[in-house]
Amino acid sequence: MEKLQNWMTALRRDLHKHAEPGWFEFRTSSLIAERLSELGYAVMTGREIIEESAVMGRDENSIPEQTDRALKQGARKEWIDRMNGFPGVLGILDTGKPGPVISLRFDIDAVEVNEVKDEKHRPFKEGFSSVNPGAMHSCGHDGHTAMGLGLAEVLVNKKETLKGIIKLIFQPAEEGVRGAKAIVEKGILDDSDYFLAIHLGMGFPTGKVVGGSSGFLCTTKFDVEYHGRSAHAGAAPNEGHNALLAAANAALNMHAIAPHRDGVSRINVGILKAGEGRNVIPPNALLKAETRGETETIATYMFKRASTIAKSSASMYEVEFRIYKKGESITTASDEELVDIVVETASRMDDFNEVEKSAELGGSDDAAWMMKRVQEKGGKATYIMLGADITAGHHNEYFDFDETALLKGVKLLSQVIGELLSNH
Amino acid sequence: MEKLQNWMTALRRDLHKHAEPGWFEFRTSSLIAERLSELGYAVMTGREIIEESAVMGRDENSIPEQTDRALKQGARKEWIDRMNGFPGVLGILDTGKPGPVISLRFDIDAVEVNEVKDEKHRPFKEGFSSVNPGAMHSCGHDGHTAMGLGLAEVLVNKKETLKGIIKLIFQPAEEGVRGAKAIVEKGILDDSDYFLAIHLGMGFPTGKVVGGSSGFLCTTKFDVEYHGRSAHAGAAPNEGHNALLAAANAALNMHAIAPHRDGVSRINVGILKAGEGRNVIPPNALLKAETRGETETIATYMFKRASTIAKSSASMYEVEFRIYKKGESITTASDEELVDIVVETASRMDDFNEVEKSAELGGSDDAAWMMKRVQEKGGKATYIMLGADITAGHHNEYFDFDETALLKGVKLLSQVIGELLSNH
Amino acid sequence: MEKLQNWMTALRRDLHKHAEPGWFEFRTSSLIAERLSELGYAVMTGREIIEESAVMGRDENSIPEQTDRALKQGARKEWIDRMNGFPGVLGILDTGKPGPVISLRFDIDAVEVNEVKDEKHRPFKEGFSSVNPGAMHSCGHDGHTAMGLGLAEVLVNKKETLKGIIKLIFQPAEEGVRGAKAIVEKGILDDSDYFLAIHLGMGFPTGKVVGGSSGFLCTTKFDVEYHGRSAHAGAAPNEGHNALLAAANAALNMHAIAPHRDGVSRINVGILKAGEGRNVIPPNALLKAETRGETETIATYMFKRASTIAKSSASMYEVEFRIYKKGESITTASDEELVDIVVETASRMDDFNEVEKSAELGGSDDAAWMMKRVQEKGGKATYIMLGADITAGHHNEYFDFDETALLKGVKLLSQVIGELLSNH
Amino acid sequence: MEKLQNWMTALRRDLHKHAEPGWFEFRTSSLIAERLSELGYAVMTGREIIEESAVMGRDENSIPEQTDRALKQGARKEWIDRMNGFPGVLGILDTGKPGPVISLRFDIDAVEVNEVKDEKHRPFKEGFSSVNPGAMHSCGHDGHTAMGLGLAEVLVNKKETLKGIIKLIFQPAEEGVRGAKAIVEKGILDDSDYFLAIHLGMGFPTGKVVGGSSGFLCTTKFDVEYHGRSAHAGAAPNEGHNALLAAANAALNMHAIAPHRDGVSRINVGILKAGEGRNVIPPNALLKAETRGETETIATYMFKRASTIAKSSASMYEVEFRIYKKGESITTASDEELVDIVVETASRMDDFNEVEKSAELGGSDDAAWMMKRVQEKGGKATYIMLGADITAGHHNEYFDFDETALLKGVKLLSQVIGELLSNH
Repeated sequence: MEKLQNWMTALRRDLHKHAEPGWFEFRTSSLIAERLSELGYAVMTGREIIEESAVMGRDENSIPEQTDRALKQGARKEWIDRMNGFPGVLGILDTGKPGPVISLRFDIDAVEVNEVKDEKHRPFKEGFSSVNPGAMHSCGHDGHTAMGLGLAEVLVNKKETLKGIIKLIFQPAEEGVRGAKAIVEKGILDDSDYFLAIHLGMGFPTGKVVGGSSGFLCTTKFDVEYHGRSAHAGAAPNEGHNALLAAANAALNMHAIAPHRDGVSRINVGILKAGEGRNVIPPNALLKAETRGETETIATYMFKRASTIAKSSASMYEVEFRIYKKGESITTASDEELVDIVVETASRMDDFNEVEKSAELGGSDDAAWMMKRVQEKGGKATYIMLGADITAGHHNEYFDFDETALLKGVKLLSQVIGELLSNH
Repeated sequence: MEKLQNWMTALRRDLHKHAEPGWFEFRTSSLIAERLSELGYAVMTGREIIEESAVMGRDENSIPEQTDRALKQGARKEWIDRMNGFPGVLGILDTGKPGPVISLRFDIDAVEVNEVKDEKHRPFKEGFSSVNPGAMHSCGHDGHTAMGLGLAEVLVNKKETLKGIIKLIFQPAEEGVRGAKAIVEKGILDDSDYFLAIHLGMGFPTGKVVGGSSGFLCTTKFDVEYHGRSAHAGAAPNEGHNALLAAANAALNMHAIAPHRDGVSRINVGILKAGEGRNVIPPNALLKAETRGETETIATYMFKRASTIAKSSASMYEVEFRIYKKGESITTASDEELVDIVVETASRMDDFNEVEKSAELGGSDDAAWMMKRVQEKGGKATYIMLGADITAGHHNEYFDFDETALLKGVKLLSQVIGELLSNH
Repeated sequence: MEKLQNWMTALRRDLHKHAEPGWFEFRTSSLIAERLSELGYAVMTGREIIEESAVMGRDENSIPEQTDRALKQGARKEWIDRMNGFPGVLGILDTGKPGPVISLRFDIDAVEVNEVKDEKHRPFKEGFSSVNPGAMHSCGHDGHTAMGLGLAEVLVNKKETLKGIIKLIFQPAEEGVRGAKAIVEKGILDDSDYFLAIHLGMGFPTGKVVGGSSGFLCTTKFDVEYHGRSAHAGAAPNEGHNALLAAANAALNMHAIAPHRDGVSRINVGILKAGEGRNVIPPNALLKAETRGETETIATYMFKRASTIAKSSASMYEVEFRIYKKGESITTASDEELVDIVVETASRMDDFNEVEKSAELGGSDDAAWMMKRVQEKGGKATYIMLGADITAGHHNEYFDFDETALLKGVKLLSQVIGELLSNH
Repeated sequence: MEKLQNWMTALRRDLHKHAEPGWFEFRTSSLIAERLSELGYAVMTGREIIEESAVMGRDENSIPEQTDRALKQGARKEWIDRMNGFPGVLGILDTGKPGPVISLRFDIDAVEVNEVKDEKHRPFKEGFSSVNPGAMHSCGHDGHTAMGLGLAEVLVNKKETLKGIIKLIFQPAEEGVRGAKAIVEKGILDDSDYFLAIHLGMGFPTGKVVGGSSGFLCTTKFDVEYHGRSAHAGAAPNEGHNALLAAANAALNMHAIAPHRDGVSRINVGILKAGEGRNVIPPNALLKAETRGETETIATYMFKRASTIAKSSASMYEVEFRIYKKGESITTASDEELVDIVVETASRMDDFNEVEKSAELGGSDDAAWMMKRVQEKGGKATYIMLGADITAGHHNEYFDFDETALLKGVKLLSQVIGELLSNH
């Protein structure tokens, strides 16, 4: 097991160094595919597992450039070709014996953050901080990927004891909740009896585990673009159609949307970029925003209000307007039956000194689409939080985590799978 | 003269292709210095003609990178070294004979605009559009520079007929009214009896000339920075200090500053950039703005109100705030006596079919600092508008001009100088 | 009992007709005082029960006019004199026997709403709608007052069976949460072993009762005044200091205060009045607003943010600014022990066909100050919701309620008191 | 003449005391009509001179109440009946001899200002300050009316020397530029060869006169109403449609309308009233605003932008919206030929020690409609400014003027009429 820990640590650091943002995980996916293939898994990638019509927030124009970048950083050409622009990997271990279908989700993308260059930050000090500007594994998905491949090996090694089918899903573009729905829509999960997702960190220390989650917020990620007309700000101000002021108004009024009586609502205009020159009436503007709600009703209310405001700001300044959905996720909750199995399994393990039944996510993860689909088809699903000491909050430029949690995670998943099979 | 026209056209196109923004005109300046030196002018550059304490809106951090870029694009190493980070050139033709000091200003910088890539645009079609992203000669300063060097040659060729001293000032960073004051503060103009500035285009057709200008607007260019605190927009919105909303408020309220009873006032927030990620309360924001006024009283009123608003927006959102002056210019007007000489001279020339006495600038040019200094010291100054057909408005990405105007301009300046000397 | 029902109905209708807003309940208080006195209660009023320094939101200037109005409408002169400008009545029934102190709160003020004049509205049709413009018992406090005096009579009639001391508190200015704190600060409740407040309606039908309440929102009611400088909007706009725009900004940005991670927060700018004339830069503005929070931390956060915004808006427009607290209440919850007694008592009564243990208030009532004081001193408190069919929502101009609930309420309170005494 | 001065002073003070706002000048009109009738003028009033479809900004609902008020203050019943709700008077002096038609405009309404109660203010000290709250002659129209009737008497006395037709127009509702157009549309001025309007004060001292005016700003006065939906701000904020925020947005963004390249533009939201209660999402709002422009193009641009903003603010907050034009005036200029006659006449008079040809109005007066109509029909028009020392700016609560200017004005008008007739 120590060997596996070391292998996963090395892999995680390699992935950390070559962090790839959502829908650009070409190098990562090719390494996953190669490894799963070596281990004997049936491997699918690209449009085999991605329903293109359900893809959200993918920057198609950057695919060629990002593919080149990935190849230069060691991506495997044969797998890149097979992906054909759509990263993500599915590894299937079919035991040939009757039994349940168990699916697991590991997300593989980095966050759009610049990693700090500071000797106090271990990845920088030890030389594995991200070489890709604007991309950093500051949410731990590098660890998730390492756990997924670690588990893949563990399962193969005990294949004789297994039955049914195990599906390891390496999902692209979880950040911005953009990727899961496209996998769900491909039907990958429709036959699953059990579904497990796992996230490390989450404010819990190494040695703690939480069996299930609730409080997923429904969310919509969206961009708003304004196109007006430039004009010389000194000589002909009345000839301009000011996109910057349209955007400023939209931002301000979106934040003033009345809260909903039925529960938590959120809005954030996270990014605003507008204008071309100091002395030019700004002809364009871009807002990157998100709405959230505790329920679908609230989420729908928030997005509808935000859309109305975005549109009215455009008409107020006589500028053209477009709104693009860039990601979307829903609310869900873990199944108590499955949570109990995780909790009982973890309680028997030496790896964990604290086991909690359930916690609030208080955010969004598009694993929710997968959980919901499995539940709708009659299966059981849970979202496990795996404690791991972290050096800074998720998405922070100083984020790093205790790598010893990786082996704990693999062992937990392996034993939960064993437990699920023994019940059948 | 046809040879000179061709030479200026070729030079203008070379400069157009290698457009350099304000304070980065290293290649341009080195070519100017080399040429003036060849022609026998005494040449000064760098801190010899720039008072560093009066420099505005210079991005010091980019100097090394821009110097490298200039060298790769053919800048002369010896002149780059002599500039030592401060572009701009003064060429002095001292006739050795008693006579007046006549100074002329030619501005040399490009605008921060991306030149269009469209076959309908001559510079693109004929292969001389800008190779430097974010820099385009869309205001005609490439033409001004070519005229300055064309005039330099013409004057040398008729040096025998001249007397007194002629100073050719090639000014950096006119865009954003950043460069002239630093030259004025160095005292370059203090001994000038006459001062001439010239601008091509300005809405007038080739063959028309306007002898003088009024209606220069006083202006202040400034940046506002906000620094707040980021926070997870879903999980802890109250922990953020929202710099984007501070900036949006500032922009909106600045545009609502009440107009001044005494005349024209202007404000423009031309650029707003804020935020780091869609789901992060935005911790930073930048505004690039300008105020203008027909008089100093109005300009002072506008900038004071804008500053108050910028500051109050910061306190409203509990973010830190800084305001930086990036450029500044004043109002001025041409001296009638000198205008009359330009008008009479032009009226006698075949090059012009329409001669107007004066027009409103309706904008700002920091040649105003130079004019004011010369006038304060007892000299006379004018700002000539040289008609030239243009393909799109100044600062537009499709801007191009009729190059036949260049020779007309050189001839006019040469003859006006002759006229001025004959009066002495 | 039918006689008591009729008596209460008649009283309620008389009070409804002569509705008096908060701090102006002179007629109401004098009638209460007279009746309690007749029944043999020790009666206190005015500053005897009101701590003037803790009074909030009282319009001192209108006291003379409102006193006159009350006298014309039948207020008792001797009691008006004794009140000396401060309405509210305390009736004390001291049994002379050892036993607990039981305090009950009945609020007596009307809402600042114009009652509808519509034949479909029973109070109008039957001639008992409010004769006082801008004042209507649209929250049922007329019923509360009638129940309080009904209970006073019932208790006197069974005085032999009682022990200890019973205090009937008739509180002014509950609307806007302005009156309770001044009574608490006088120490009236400090010796109470039990405290009961009761509110009719609340969305529950006649025949239902809820024993206790939680979810009181902490709230602050406040006014913001801006004073700027007027100027002619056409001839000298720059000379004005625009209070209207300061207020508009404050309103907009207050509504954009980020929600708090820990729970429900609210803000409302309910009223904005600004300006003097169409062609005058507005020299003054008034905002009437409120903040709320599920906890004191949240409420403090909201009011602090609102204050900061109000102040920054003033500095943005260079206007003077004042903020006045007009009312304040806190969060609290009923004591389970006391709730259980209410629930058990009600369950044994024929008057109620549905008894619930607890419900969320989802709003604010300054009975919370009284509950908290009693609890701090070691006593037990609850806030009972008494079902009563209503014709429109609380505070609506069509509000009316099923008067048969009044007798049910009196019987419940009487029996709960009996139960509390029997436990001692 | 001293007798006439005294008579006008007494009349002016009586009118000052009984100040009547626009469209409510019932008492004033009845006194004018009675006097003109006594003097032998043909008198018309009400719909005889007012085209109802062109009336702007008239509050029809207040007519009965204001009529009652006027009658109580001494209005003549027979004339009130004849007015039938539309004040304003036309007096025609037909000499029966051939000659030109000369029309003069005197405006008669008060401003909606509360007159100050201060011993330093002569009207208060001497007992002739306004008895009508919210109405004060703080623009001098009481003086204009007195001059009109003074002139009426002078003309009758020298009727023998006159020829042609003289029309004295006593116009209602000049404030807010609401009344003139309705008179113009009735055709009253269509046959006029000459038109004279006169305004006292205007920043010029007693003894000075200005023959003509330019710089009238085109203006539109308008109200915006928003109707949303109320909701409990604590319990159901999402159910409200917030009219206050719609109005706040409209106000802010209207003030941010870009200035026009071609000249002076103005906007003012002078009054904003919104909301019903502190804890209610505001269901209604009212804005009173005005736009102005140096030219019709600019004025049209400003009003169009304001309308767009008003409408977009409504859609942003999902509230209903209405915009009402309340007044409108245009730009115009005096005819030089007529100005010269005024200037020459005044120069010959002892009454004036300073005579100026023309001045900028810098504001709006709906006499412009009358001037334009006369000019369109081939006549000549001017707007005379009659110097009069004032104690405070026009529209200020301390406004008062030097009454000796009245006789100077009457004499000037009388002599100008004589001059005009002598030219025919």
